Amino acid sequence: MFLSKLFIPITKDLPSEAKIKSHQLMLRTGMIRQSSAGIYSWLPLGFKIMKKIEQIVREEQNNIGAQEMLMPTIQSADIWKESGRYDDYGEEMLRIKDRQGREMLYGPTNEELITEIFRSSVKSYKSLPQMLYHIQWKFRDEVRPRFGVMRCREFFMKDAYSFDIDEASAKKSYNKMFFAYLKTFKRLGLEAIPMAADTGPIGGDLSHEFVILAETGESKIYADKKIFKIELDKFKFNDDSLANMRKELTSFYAVTDEKFNKSEFDKAVNKSDQIITKGIEVGHIFYFGDKYSKPLNCLVDSQEGKKNSVKMGSYGIGVSRLVGAIIEAKYNKDIMKWPKSVSPFDVVIIPSISKNNTENLTKANKIYQELKKQNIDVLLDDVDENMSAKFKKHDLIGVPYQIIIGSKSKGDQFEFKEVNGETQTLSLKEIKEKIKN
Amino acid sequence: MFLSKLFIPITKDLPSEAKIKSHQLMLRTGMIRQSSAGIYSWLPLGFKIMKKIEQIVREEQNNIGAQEMLMPTIQSADIWKESGRYDDYGEEMLRIKDRQGREMLYGPTNEELITEIFRSSVKSYKSLPQMLYHIQWKFRDEVRPRFGVMRCREFFMKDAYSFDIDEASAKKSYNKMFFAYLKTFKRLGLEAIPMAADTGPIGGDLSHEFVILAETGESKIYADKKIFKIELDKFKFNDDSLANMRKELTSFYAVTDEKFNKSEFDKAVNKSDQIITKGIEVGHIFYFGDKYSKPLNCLVDSQEGKKNSVKMGSYGIGVSRLVGAIIEAKYNKDIMKWPKSVSPFDVVIIPSISKNNTENLTKANKIYQELKKQNIDVLLDDVDENMSAKFKKHDLIGVPYQIIIGSKSKGDQFEFKEVNGETQTLSLKEIKEKIKN
Repeated sequence: MFLSKLFIPITKDLPSEAKIKSHQLMLRTGMIRQSSAGIYSWLPLGFKIMKKIEQIVREEQNNIGAQEMLMPTIQSADIWKESGRYDDYGEEMLRIKDRQGREMLYGPTNEELITEIFRSSVKSYKSLPQMLYHIQWKFRDEVRPRFGVMRCREFFMKDAYSFDIDEASAKKSYNKMFFAYLKTFKRLGLEAIPMAADTGPIGGDLSHEFVILAETGESKIYADKKIFKIELDKFKFNDDSLANMRKELTSFYAVTDEKFNKSEFDKAVNKSDQIITKGIEVGHIFYFGDKYSKPLNCLVDSQEGKKNSVKMGSYGIGVSRLVGAIIEAKYNKDIMKWPKSVSPFDVVIIPSISKNNTENLTKANKIYQELKKQNIDVLLDDVDENMSAKFKKHDLIGVPYQIIIGSKSKGDQFEFKEVNGETQTLSLKEIKEKIKN
Repeated sequence: MFLSKLFIPITKDLPSEAKIKSHQLMLRTGMIRQSSAGIYSWLPLGFKIMKKIEQIVREEQNNIGAQEMLMPTIQSADIWKESGRYDDYGEEMLRIKDRQGREMLYGPTNEELITEIFRSSVKSYKSLPQMLYHIQWKFRDEVRPRFGVMRCREFFMKDAYSFDIDEASAKKSYNKMFFAYLKTFKRLGLEAIPMAADTGPIGGDLSHEFVILAETGESKIYADKKIFKIELDKFKFNDDSLANMRKELTSFYAVTDEKFNKSEFDKAVNKSDQIITKGIEVGHIFYFGDKYSKPLNCLVDSQEGKKNSVKMGSYGIGVSRLVGAIIEAKYNKDIMKWPKSVSPFDVVIIPSISKNNTENLTKANKIYQELKKQNIDVLLDDVDENMSAKFKKHDLIGVPYQIIIGSKSKGDQFEFKEVNGETQTLSLKEIKEKIKN
């Protein structure tokens, strides 16, 4: 992609309404544009990053055997009345009357609807366990939407639901999701800590939040540094190993503000291992047994011929929120560096361009074609602008690798730089290898 | 995927509410489930097919240089008041008041919002031409939603928008989209006829519908058979060639009911070339100049320094509707055959299973693993059911290739069948080649 063709409305000013750095960066680099309070359009740069995150989330859900489907955004109020949450949910639920006067709503979550689908389809223990998920837009009518995509009204979320015959089996499903979450965040370049959590309006008695460390986070967290030493790869994808994994990971002290107790913290964690910082919730999982299946009458025949309420859990990841969360974690001192797995481009070519000299642009073009042939996704900055302005701009766009074509590039040797790293002089062949690894 | 694990609630009865064959088939094979009038959940089988269609639509948009982005589902009423369509749109628009009492709506289309985004970002002819698209859920509050996904309320649609400095340039963008549409439908296994169309509530003075032939279609069509003889591949992706393409394709008689005139038809088309059948609209494109850019004040500086309203077009493809449209075109006499490009699986293995003999299932499993290794997407029907029931079921699911493992399979030779074709006895190697071609 040529930068001059990319629809990327970069603004030089710091947007005044943006209070946190992800919101600032996303507006400055034209990733998003607000269309009304807490509702955003995703422009090509932001969209591409979000899609890459979505795909990683999807792959890790598929890897544990969850099946993708898609529920609609608009739901009937009826099933929410059946579960009893219609009144509980309060003003955050966007309530709608259609032209026939029927009570509808924009789904803020999907426990009711998935239970309704399941009860009409599955009747026997033979079809269990089952995990279904979808990645869909949701709406919560926040009274004060702010912080850009971190606390907006229309947001993109993966929510999964597990269905099991009994609690023991349901916990196995829970552990699989726990594992998928850790793998997902790792692939996104994030270190997420699972923390025992309150269940809130979803309900149930077992729940973990996945929290990433970021100084600008919304909640204060207290944790044991040793949790980061656990190697995920040592766990195998079988029930026993996954149970051990959850046990080991949750054996370390890790709580948010509300559950913090200083003397417990000091007792459980060596001073030198204590992390006291802020965090951002990027995922939340719940086991809630028959909280929805019972009122909605979602029954399956057990092997003994008895009718049981199916045992359920639900598992959320904020896909649009993760775009902001990654920025909060990775954007420092006016420099952004996207993790390679979600970077909008693999590499950017930055030629020094002047009106009287098109040599660098021609060279850049040649490299561009070369890299394209290798299936490397390249951005070429063909904008006529001075180099220092270009460097500042690319510090914000955050493509992790740069090829700089200026006075120092001679013959087949180019300046190559990893953002925040040293500049090296490399041949195109060496550059290709760097990018591909 | 093992059929016993797939979340695919197959019903044996013909659903009484379904009047057309796509609606019937989609309910019978558990592709969708209605959650409220005209609003559907997409279950794994239907979802997978829709995603494949979406991806083909996306690739052909990218191929002509359109950039993907994403606008939200919920919009502010304000921009619709600016364009003057807020009152025009009538009750089909789902109108919403949020908790602050602001007037919002669920977008039925996006001309206003994209114009608003564009006007705030692009100021100069240097950034033109530009094409942007998104694939997003939309809502039209049909008074009588029916025919399943063909006329539902919440639907998935690709809508693209072009921006040009003047009409001549805008027509070139129009032709590019015209071309992308023909390529898209061809890859979906459909023969779509472009027909001059009324512009309706979108407005403008140039418009084409893309209509596929299907006896159960919603509108009667009259066309010249010779249109199908045009080879798309002879046109190149440059302005002149694309202009010729549109000229050639639209030179043949092809109209819907409302524009039909018998004497003109007879004059223009030889009796033997006359097609009189029904059709389904799967795409619709419009050029409407400054219909939105003028009231919304979307101006760009021309090369001469004058401020001009940008010239726009919009281009829709109904992605969720296409799932139904493909069924209407391909499902005949209780047999469905998905085009290979969108089939939910590449091949299905159907072993004859009995309680006392697991030999066929073991053999099926071995083939399954072999094909998986070759990146072939296989469905294995491991359900304990008699063969005639299985065949009937797979006639509906519509995977185009079947490997049948029963009494006739000996050693490395298997019964292989293309739906609607003859059964052949082939080795696994030959089968792999058949599937991959």
